[in-house]
Amino acid sequence: MSCDFLKLANAGVQKLHPYQAGKPMSELERELGITDIVKLASNENPLGLSEKVKAALQSELAELTRYPDANGFNLKQALSYKYQVELNQVTLGNGSNDLLELVARAFVSTTNEVIFAQYAFIVYPIVTQAIGAKAVVVPAKDYGHDLEAMAAAVTDKTKLIFIANPNNPTGTFLEADQIRSFLSKVPAHVLVVLDEAYFEYAAAERRGNAIALINDFPNLIVSRTFSKAYGLAGLRVGYSISNPQIADILNRVRQPFNCNALALKAAETVLQDQEYLQKGIELNNAGMADLSAFFSEKGLEYIHSMGNFITVNVGKSGDEVYQQLLHEGVIVRPITGYGLSEHLRISIGTEAENQRFKQALTRVLNLQ
Amino acid sequence: MSCDFLKLANAGVQKLHPYQAGKPMSELERELGITDIVKLASNENPLGLSEKVKAALQSELAELTRYPDANGFNLKQALSYKYQVELNQVTLGNGSNDLLELVARAFVSTTNEVIFAQYAFIVYPIVTQAIGAKAVVVPAKDYGHDLEAMAAAVTDKTKLIFIANPNNPTGTFLEADQIRSFLSKVPAHVLVVLDEAYFEYAAAERRGNAIALINDFPNLIVSRTFSKAYGLAGLRVGYSISNPQIADILNRVRQPFNCNALALKAAETVLQDQEYLQKGIELNNAGMADLSAFFSEKGLEYIHSMGNFITVNVGKSGDEVYQQLLHEGVIVRPITGYGLSEHLRISIGTEAENQRFKQALTRVLNLQ
Repeated sequence: MSCDFLKLANAGVQKLHPYQAGKPMSELERELGITDIVKLASNENPLGLSEKVKAALQSELAELTRYPDANGFNLKQALSYKYQVELNQVTLGNGSNDLLELVARAFVSTTNEVIFAQYAFIVYPIVTQAIGAKAVVVPAKDYGHDLEAMAAAVTDKTKLIFIANPNNPTGTFLEADQIRSFLSKVPAHVLVVLDEAYFEYAAAERRGNAIALINDFPNLIVSRTFSKAYGLAGLRVGYSISNPQIADILNRVRQPFNCNALALKAAETVLQDQEYLQKGIELNNAGMADLSAFFSEKGLEYIHSMGNFITVNVGKSGDEVYQQLLHEGVIVRPITGYGLSEHLRISIGTEAENQRFKQALTRVLNLQ
Repeated sequence: MSCDFLKLANAGVQKLHPYQAGKPMSELERELGITDIVKLASNENPLGLSEKVKAALQSELAELTRYPDANGFNLKQALSYKYQVELNQVTLGNGSNDLLELVARAFVSTTNEVIFAQYAFIVYPIVTQAIGAKAVVVPAKDYGHDLEAMAAAVTDKTKLIFIANPNNPTGTFLEADQIRSFLSKVPAHVLVVLDEAYFEYAAAERRGNAIALINDFPNLIVSRTFSKAYGLAGLRVGYSISNPQIADILNRVRQPFNCNALALKAAETVLQDQEYLQKGIELNNAGMADLSAFFSEKGLEYIHSMGNFITVNVGKSGDEVYQQLLHEGVIVRPITGYGLSEHLRISIGTEAENQRFKQALTRVLNLQ
C-alpha cells in the first residue's frame, strides 16, 4: 500500500514548481529531428571554451578518482587576490544559483519575508517557495528594480532582499550610486544579495565596485558566476563575496564538494585569461548593437540590456513564436513564466548565430 | 555598524558543524612540505580514471560553455535501463550526498525526528542539524545497525530513517532479508533512505537487490554513487531510485544543474565500463585481504568490512597516530568525530600504497 508522498513533503515544497531550463539542443534534435541548431536561450558564452581552460583540464583528468578540494583553496585564493578581499570572505557555489539557495536556506525560515522585484530572476521566487517563506514581489519600474519601493517594502519580517544587476531576463541596470543609496535605507539585520551574474558584460565605466561596499554594509552579499562571460556554464561555478561571518555560515550549509574538481580548475584558470574575457565582451557588444539595430529597423520594441541577451516584444504570444522558431532550428527563451507573455529573450550569439536568428524571426513574423 | 549574523541564521544552522573532508594531498604538501604522498583517507578508487571516461570527456570539452542538460536525460536513461526502472524513478545528485540532503530538505521540518545509527555516515546528523530537526541516534550493535532497535525508535514524529549499507566508516553489512524484514516493520509514511554508496564492493552473492524492494515498499529510497567503485569522486555524481512521486518531489527541490556536463558524460560512460568496475573490485578484494592479514599478524583489532576501506583499532589516540602518519606522507582518516577515538579508517589503495601504509604504521606504532 502506498501513501500520498506529496502530502508528506514540507509545505513550501508541495507548491514548488521547478526551474525550467533553456531547451538543450539534444532535446530539440530528439523531438523534431532537426540538426544544425542555433541555441540562443540560456545566455551562454558563444565563444566556445577558453583554450587555456581546455589545456588545464587535460592535466586534471587523471586525478578525477580523487575528491575535489572541499575548501576550494586555489580558486578562493585566486578570487581573493583578484578582488582584494580576504580568503574567508569567499564562498564557492555550484553556479551562483547555489549561493542564492544557500543564503535563503541558512537565514530564511517559514515565518520570514523575502523581497525581490517583478521580472527579476526566477530563482528568487523558487528558493523562497522551497523554504515556504513569503515572497514579497515589488512591481517593476521600466522592467527594472524600483529600489525606493523595495526599501519601503521592508517589514519586521523581512530577512532577505534579492537584487539582480544587470537584471535577468530584462537586462536593466542599476547605477552604483543607486545601489549605495538603497543599502543605506535597508536595516543592518536584513541581508541583501546583489546578484551580479552578468557583471562583466555591463559597461566598464558604469559597473562600479559593489564588493567595496561590503565594508560599509556588512549585510551585503555579492554573488557572481563563471557561467556567463567566463564561459563555464557546463561546469557550474559561482561565488559570493561577503562579510566573513556570513561566509562562515554559508560554508557550513554548503555541501562540501559542491564544486567538482574540473570546475575548480577551470575557474581558477579562466580567471587569469583576460584575453578570453575581453574577446567575449567585444563579441557581445557587437552582437548587441546588431540585434538592437535589427529590432529598431523592424519596428520591434526591445528593452535596453546591459547583459549578454536582449528581450524583445514580438507583439503576439511569445510561446507561439518560440515554437515556430524551434522549427527553424533556433532556440530562444520564452518568458511567459515571468509575466512577459509577448516577449522573448534572445542570448547574443556569434555573428553567424545572430544572423540565423534574424532570418528565422523575419520568416516567422513575416517581417518586411 | 555590523550585526551578529549568526543570530540571524536559522536555529539548526547556528549549531551546524560542517563536514570534515579527508585531507587533500595538496594541503599536506603546503603544510608540511611533504611530497610523494599516499592518500588512503577518502575511500577513493585507487585505479585511476577509466580510460573510456578520459576519452569521452575529451569530446565534451568544446561544449562546456553550454549549460548541462538539466534533466540529465542520457544518464537517467542509462540508469533506468541498467536497473530496469522507469526514467521517472531516477533523481540525479551532486554525489549521493546531494540526495541525502534533498530527501531531508524536501520532507523533514523542525518538528520531525530523523533516525540513524551510531557510527553511521556523518552526513546524516549534518543534514538533520541543518534543518533543525531532532536526530534520534540508535546505539550500534557490533559497530553496525541495530535494525530492531531502529524500528522500535519510530514515533509519530519520525519522518525519515537513514541506513548505510555497507556502513561507512565501519564497513558493516546488512543482509537482504534483514533489510526486508526491517522495511516491513516501518510505517508506510516514514521514508527510508538506504544509502548504498559502497554497494558494488559488497560480495556479489550477498548484496541482494534493494531496488526491487521499492515495489513492495514505496517509502524506500535507494541512493548510490559514482564516487567509489566507478572512480568519479572528483566529478560528483550520485543518484537515487525511488517511487516516481518521491522522485518528482526530489527533482523539484534539486538545483537544475546540480550535475555538471562532464560529470553527466563521465557517469554515462563508466556505467558501461564493466571491465573497469571489475578490475577495481578485484584490486579492492586483494588489498582488503592484505590489510586484514597485516592487522591480524600485528594483533590489531579491525572491523570486518564490505566496503573499500577497513577500520582498525590502533590502541591509542587515533588523532595522534593520524598526525604521525601525516609526517610519513600517509593520509588516513581519523574518526574521533564518529566517537571512535582509537580507530582509524584506511581506504584500500593499490598494492604499493597499501605497502607504504603498512610500513608507516609499523614505524609509528613500533610494531614488531
